[in-house]
Amino acid sequence: MSEVRRDIVTDTWVIIDTENDSIPKTKAQQAPEKDGCAFCEGQESRTPNEIYAIRDGTAANGPGWKVRVIPNIKPILRIEGTLAKTGVGVYDMVSGVGANEVIVETPQHLIRFSELPDEQIRLVLNTYRMRIDDLHKDKRLRYVLIYKNHGTLAGASTVNHVHSDLIALPATPVRVKQKLSGAREYYGYKERCLFCDLMFQEIEMGDRLIFQSDKFVVIAPYASRFPFEVLILPKRHMYSYKLIDEDEVFDLSQVLKKVIGIMHEVLEDPPYNLILNDSPNLLPKTSYWKTIKQDFHWHIEIMPRIYRTTGFELGTGFYINHYAPEKAAGVLRSHL
Amino acid sequence: MSEVRRDIVTDTWVIIDTENDSIPKTKAQQAPEKDGCAFCEGQESRTPNEIYAIRDGTAANGPGWKVRVIPNIKPILRIEGTLAKTGVGVYDMVSGVGANEVIVETPQHLIRFSELPDEQIRLVLNTYRMRIDDLHKDKRLRYVLIYKNHGTLAGASTVNHVHSDLIALPATPVRVKQKLSGAREYYGYKERCLFCDLMFQEIEMGDRLIFQSDKFVVIAPYASRFPFEVLILPKRHMYSYKLIDEDEVFDLSQVLKKVIGIMHEVLEDPPYNLILNDSPNLLPKTSYWKTIKQDFHWHIEIMPRIYRTTGFELGTGFYINHYAPEKAAGVLRSHL
Repeated sequence: MSEVRRDIVTDTWVIIDTENDSIPKTKAQQAPEKDGCAFCEGQESRTPNEIYAIRDGTAANGPGWKVRVIPNIKPILRIEGTLAKTGVGVYDMVSGVGANEVIVETPQHLIRFSELPDEQIRLVLNTYRMRIDDLHKDKRLRYVLIYKNHGTLAGASTVNHVHSDLIALPATPVRVKQKLSGAREYYGYKERCLFCDLMFQEIEMGDRLIFQSDKFVVIAPYASRFPFEVLILPKRHMYSYKLIDEDEVFDLSQVLKKVIGIMHEVLEDPPYNLILNDSPNLLPKTSYWKTIKQDFHWHIEIMPRIYRTTGFELGTGFYINHYAPEKAAGVLRSHL
Repeated sequence: MSEVRRDIVTDTWVIIDTENDSIPKTKAQQAPEKDGCAFCEGQESRTPNEIYAIRDGTAANGPGWKVRVIPNIKPILRIEGTLAKTGVGVYDMVSGVGANEVIVETPQHLIRFSELPDEQIRLVLNTYRMRIDDLHKDKRLRYVLIYKNHGTLAGASTVNHVHSDLIALPATPVRVKQKLSGAREYYGYKERCLFCDLMFQEIEMGDRLIFQSDKFVVIAPYASRFPFEVLILPKRHMYSYKLIDEDEVFDLSQVLKKVIGIMHEVLEDPPYNLILNDSPNLLPKTSYWKTIKQDFHWHIEIMPRIYRTTGFELGTGFYINHYAPEKAAGVLRSHL
């Protein structure tokens, strides 16, 4: 049998196959390694000039860094230029103003995020905060998305060296708008944060709870779009990742390492995407700026890309998930 | 440079890389061939009983058919049962009522749709119409989606024998709602069909026009989500595929064979999805039933799955397309 479940945040539906018991597996494939990786320490001259780096007094664009942020060498959006809207017949177009950065997460040529030492993950998480904070100063930018693609099936590019991608956009993405609107509607009705309520319910029910730390809760979402999808929520209500404190960064570094580690173990190194779902840049001219601090609650999604989406997903915007989140949570819990 | 283009129908955005000139290629991979295919003529006893077939007087569930429709052997939704909505804490769930059928498009073990004779494609297109018409009689079903997955990267399953999938849903999909709402808004403002206007504009501008036949127009959409995405629109305004006439079926069979054939030639057998975008089941209790006949215009989308979607697409609902539709149209035109 199957259940058609509604994602309460985005108001979309997922068909969950509740009968299947076989754990789907697909190993993450990496791009072929080329001669020398431009993201490794000592190769700094092969990348564009760094935007930000964690360094111990060493000079920019040379060795001696711990985390390094550089512009994407083939940026899909550029920071230069004015934001111009143009009509093309019945169509609308905006010039490609934005930012496209790469966060290189270690000077060593490692491929898996879960192989980084805790301390290194903390530096990465602090870098995320710094970059969001900095880019939000540019009022043309409506949204900053930080994400990871591990394995070619998750859309990883030609560089295997562990890194995150950052894209800052001149428009609020449709999926973010769906989430904001779901959260606002719920708050309007209940006067409580949807994500806080959802977190307390999952802790109480327990069947989709994977684990909790002092500061975070890790669950398999009720309407998971992908098998073994994971949602990480901070226990403290915070509308933006910018508000994360040092204790939470410390805790989150351990949580991330643990959850990606057990996913790696259970699914045998699956391709996956990690997405930092932050609130948009809070600009007074946007419709949500007054209520967002109470309605929204930042979170991280991790989505193994074991199944390929089909014409069904493209045609409907709905998803089919062949492995129930309750079973996924059980399997992941048993590997803690 | 890139352009951020708005999809006027769905109100979503696509970032188009307008600089890249290299044509992306990925060959469609098939599942390993197993001993004997259950979809081939003579193997009827290995499938569930047929729902519909085009036969010349031969008995059901034996050989002697031209097109055969069977239930999916592992249906994700089933026609039996009552449509029950249940609450699970803050969540909503609907029982998995619907239909999940397979349209086997030829008795021979062919793998590519464009290898079917014209006459066979006509029978397939008539079968699509019959199945939609029949399933719309069930008032629990809100939407019938027919689609094709070619190649494992497009989500093709383990059977390579050329077929289409059909899923009938108890809810109108979010992507269909977006299209209906974009079309209705445009009609409300202009008192003209959005798709008719878009088609006339593309014929006039010409740079995204691939070709036109007597009854259909084939274009590379302005905000294509995927490189070499193709949109096929009937010239006659029809809200539903159910209204297609015999002349249009004849014309469409040639158009489909031609466009998939040149796509195969230019991109060297790419994985792709084909989606028949029809209107929902017209039920008086739905909000759109009164206006849909004037607003909506059925169409077919074909999407090569050469690039894998990344965390960007999953996190935003926006797409990045590395090959401009104007260039794609030019390349496809040059192979006509």
